[in-house]
Amino acid sequence: MAAALGPASSLPRSASRFLSFSNSRFHRNVFIILKPLTTYSTPLLPCLHCYPLLGDNLRVHTDAHSFSPRWFSSTIAGALSSGEAAPDKAKTQLLEKQPNVGTGGKVREFRKRLRILDIKGGPDEGLDRLGQKLVVKGWVRTLRAQRSITFIEVNDGSCLSNMQCVVNSDAEGYDQVESGSITTGASLCMEGTIVSSQGSEQKVEFSVTKVMMVGKSDPSFPIQKKRVSREFLRTKAHLRPRTNTFGAVARLRNALAYATHKFFQENGFVWISSPIITASDCEGAGEQFCVTTLIPNSQEGTKSPVHTIPKTEGGLIDWSKDFFGKPAFLTVSGQLNAETYATALSDVYTFGPTFRAENSNTSRHLAEFWMIEPELAFADLDDDMACATAYLQYVVKYVLENCREDMDFFNTWIEKGIIDRLSYVAEKDFVQLTYTDAIELLLRAKKKFEFPVKWGCDLQSEHERYITEEAFSGCPVIIRDYPKEIKAFYMRQNDDGKTVAAMDLLVPRVGELIGGSQREERLEYLEARLDELELDKESYWWYLDLRRFGSVPHAGFGLGFERLVQFATGLDNIRDVIPFPRTPGSAEF
Amino acid sequence: MAAALGPASSLPRSASRFLSFSNSRFHRNVFIILKPLTTYSTPLLPCLHCYPLLGDNLRVHTDAHSFSPRWFSSTIAGALSSGEAAPDKAKTQLLEKQPNVGTGGKVREFRKRLRILDIKGGPDEGLDRLGQKLVVKGWVRTLRAQRSITFIEVNDGSCLSNMQCVVNSDAEGYDQVESGSITTGASLCMEGTIVSSQGSEQKVEFSVTKVMMVGKSDPSFPIQKKRVSREFLRTKAHLRPRTNTFGAVARLRNALAYATHKFFQENGFVWISSPIITASDCEGAGEQFCVTTLIPNSQEGTKSPVHTIPKTEGGLIDWSKDFFGKPAFLTVSGQLNAETYATALSDVYTFGPTFRAENSNTSRHLAEFWMIEPELAFADLDDDMACATAYLQYVVKYVLENCREDMDFFNTWIEKGIIDRLSYVAEKDFVQLTYTDAIELLLRAKKKFEFPVKWGCDLQSEHERYITEEAFSGCPVIIRDYPKEIKAFYMRQNDDGKTVAAMDLLVPRVGELIGGSQREERLEYLEARLDELELDKESYWWYLDLRRFGSVPHAGFGLGFERLVQFATGLDNIRDVIPFPRTPGSAEF
Repeated sequence: MAAALGPASSLPRSASRFLSFSNSRFHRNVFIILKPLTTYSTPLLPCLHCYPLLGDNLRVHTDAHSFSPRWFSSTIAGALSSGEAAPDKAKTQLLEKQPNVGTGGKVREFRKRLRILDIKGGPDEGLDRLGQKLVVKGWVRTLRAQRSITFIEVNDGSCLSNMQCVVNSDAEGYDQVESGSITTGASLCMEGTIVSSQGSEQKVEFSVTKVMMVGKSDPSFPIQKKRVSREFLRTKAHLRPRTNTFGAVARLRNALAYATHKFFQENGFVWISSPIITASDCEGAGEQFCVTTLIPNSQEGTKSPVHTIPKTEGGLIDWSKDFFGKPAFLTVSGQLNAETYATALSDVYTFGPTFRAENSNTSRHLAEFWMIEPELAFADLDDDMACATAYLQYVVKYVLENCREDMDFFNTWIEKGIIDRLSYVAEKDFVQLTYTDAIELLLRAKKKFEFPVKWGCDLQSEHERYITEEAFSGCPVIIRDYPKEIKAFYMRQNDDGKTVAAMDLLVPRVGELIGGSQREERLEYLEARLDELELDKESYWWYLDLRRFGSVPHAGFGLGFERLVQFATGLDNIRDVIPFPRTPGSAEF
Repeated sequence: MAAALGPASSLPRSASRFLSFSNSRFHRNVFIILKPLTTYSTPLLPCLHCYPLLGDNLRVHTDAHSFSPRWFSSTIAGALSSGEAAPDKAKTQLLEKQPNVGTGGKVREFRKRLRILDIKGGPDEGLDRLGQKLVVKGWVRTLRAQRSITFIEVNDGSCLSNMQCVVNSDAEGYDQVESGSITTGASLCMEGTIVSSQGSEQKVEFSVTKVMMVGKSDPSFPIQKKRVSREFLRTKAHLRPRTNTFGAVARLRNALAYATHKFFQENGFVWISSPIITASDCEGAGEQFCVTTLIPNSQEGTKSPVHTIPKTEGGLIDWSKDFFGKPAFLTVSGQLNAETYATALSDVYTFGPTFRAENSNTSRHLAEFWMIEPELAFADLDDDMACATAYLQYVVKYVLENCREDMDFFNTWIEKGIIDRLSYVAEKDFVQLTYTDAIELLLRAKKKFEFPVKWGCDLQSEHERYITEEAFSGCPVIIRDYPKEIKAFYMRQNDDGKTVAAMDLLVPRVGELIGGSQREERLEYLEARLDELELDKESYWWYLDLRRFGSVPHAGFGLGFERLVQFATGLDNIRDVIPFPRTPGSAEF
């Protein structure tokens, strides 16, 4: 096995995924490129991965394919000075021979990729990496050619910041810059050194010694430097995450999702997956999508004759022939199912997709959206409100602390003042008042509403906004104890006989963000309510069982995750906060 | 406002949700029960929450409803000696007057509920709480009456362990024990003291001073003490989480899900939600459910006449009248969508439900299941295998470390030796070998297989199990570089022209747990492959765009979450590891 010590001339992509080839502690660079091995003549020879003797702070990685006739290449990556990009496992496996396992080889160790965030995201904004030789990979955002120097802004999606890459004419591969083949949208791999930047925009930049084109960008690339509208970008949902706005939204959405899991896990809640396909309708009246295999499931719609649908003698759809033997639908809520687990495990939450087949073509509605639905056992409405408040404050605080750069972006470009608004929400006590008081407040308001206010009416968006934005000057408000007529059957009746223990949490700009209630745990009340509403008790047999066998007071709430992302980013159209929005007439991508 | 200092006689449920009424530091008990306030005559009076003056280590909580004619009750919970059940917020709000916010009141502080896990789950198994007066709430598992003493085993789902509650005849509410109204399945609230246990089963037990029935259990409760089969429990999916097995499965499933998020988040992956409703079919040939609003979406199947379905003049279904204006389906994989985000944000993962309309009534198939699909940019198959290995070892280690009690249960009752098997997986290097080598291995095996082995054939379960269980004695094995004919169109062609850069990770007992590949990033290869398979290039326009604009080598894998739960629990039927399984003919609950 021949090993050549010297600078890498052509690094295999896989080997350089994790490559930081400067050993900052010893200020030396070490490379090993192995020549191709001869192909094994028999596939059953043992595979010998020979690890060269190096030093403790160096690591050997091989992407050897046991018996494939391809290059065996090993590269040495200097131990990174930053822990962020360093390998998880402490023990190196140097000098350790590959055990003879018959025909098998060892799987390479997984290491977190060195990203632009790892370089620039620290407190020193990259100054701690001055002089380090690294490999940067990403997509070209902009390119500015000056006389003998070219600035390429490269982004890898790990953070909003680009890496400013400075390419001099003596850099290897500079001809690609000169020939104009490197354009916006192209993907590059560059070797170079972190140097301090003379620009005011960033503390460090990347002085490039070698440019390697990974993937060209066709001149038709639709997201050029000039600003493009969000409406237009919705038609390019597969490319829009490559923009500042949608990259930031994706990262924020991720942070909110993870903060959601963290909050509930830290408080002892168990995540449960409520079913997506269901034969029951939680709200009693939701517009649902039908899920069926009765319609021939060909991709080509033109080939589905109606007459092939199985029917009964009376001409009705013969559901017994359908996949589930009866009509099935997409869920509108996992709550009823969550209740079954809450009355066994105490505190649970769902986080999954839910659906509405409503023909609402607005900026606030999606046919498919994600919901978070916690359910607390041995809990009443006050516990519920307390949990909703703590949850919201937790996730808002989380993004303020962990997504500073993206939040600054939203604050500058999407909604001025959003950071202040969120900070206020994270710190302030929320206000609670009853529906009855809210009506009183609205009636006394010196304001003309489009929808008249009257006890018993549902609160409209204008009412909700008046309450939270004006009456309580931007403070989130919880309204509770709504008239039972405007709320769902499962909510617990209050002693007044008129209201139920429901609550809606309203926030400025978005309006209702969270809706919840204490559930009716008394069998006789629940059955009476189902009768009143002429709902079929038989189909709720299992839900009623929870009240027959060890019923407990319990409460929960639902939060539309996309509304939360809107609230935290300031984006006014809900189609811009989910990767691939589904709306009437649109299921593209 | 009158305050009575003395033991609580009737604690409101809400107030006692968080109640630990012993202050272990000062060995004194403090209670305050407030008398009912007079009802406000006008709903717009300011709400005054008067906090009594107490001490720094005491907290006041109120569940006062601003203006409702109900009891205003405040209870004092002694600061808990254990941090687990302690409030999140450090600052108490004692002596702070409720600000006059017009009509609003303050929302109560949220605090993690004191659970049986919090009492018994520590390293001392509860001995650190000896002498503490607490409230325990949960469901009766068993009840053993002896002469003047009754043992009630209570479980609250926070852990496998019950709290053994010892009720003497002098306990308040003992008449309910005597009368036989407390039966298996009933929910109780009990006050008492933690004492050391004389039994060998546990270190502490709960000496009850007061028994309060929360919810009776009808004698028809189907899960009595005697063992019931898992088949039977599938028909009681709403009650089965109240059993040892399904409680443990729910907690383990939760732990695996959270560990999944932790692993990817710690490694810089962004969670994205791939769409559930889609007009494209990732695998090209998956059996999909149709999602439609053309069929009248009434809950009552008998009222859906076939003739009302919109049709074209030729008698075909008129898809233009459907919700999305074209045929739409439930997703079989989020991979193609994940690729769009990976080629913008670098590393992403999905974790969401996926669907197969396959008529497979086996113990290994579900119509609805959860998938985890990471996608790595600037990555090849070796990176992919390394990531899959690291992921699996991480989550296995996580449950071994965090779910010891439940794992011991599985080890004893479900699959003997599962802890050893998982520990082995967590520590061992995984083996990789090519498909070609695997075929060679199988051909040389001294074993008769049902399905004949031959290069080009798909590996059957018996082959996979032989490889991982016998040839590599229980070590997980990754098989790579499969013939392109048996793999999907998007997998990257190897240089040999015959195989693709695919990999399957096989584990003992379960077989294939993970399937992945490097994706074909070369436009011309991908288009040629689509042509070869006679797939419609037009419908993949956006997927091909990823190769037109800054294509990068990338790879990913998919993991069926329920298979993982099976692997980690030892349960042999997949219907027992998801709360509400969907299978042909079954969409109950």
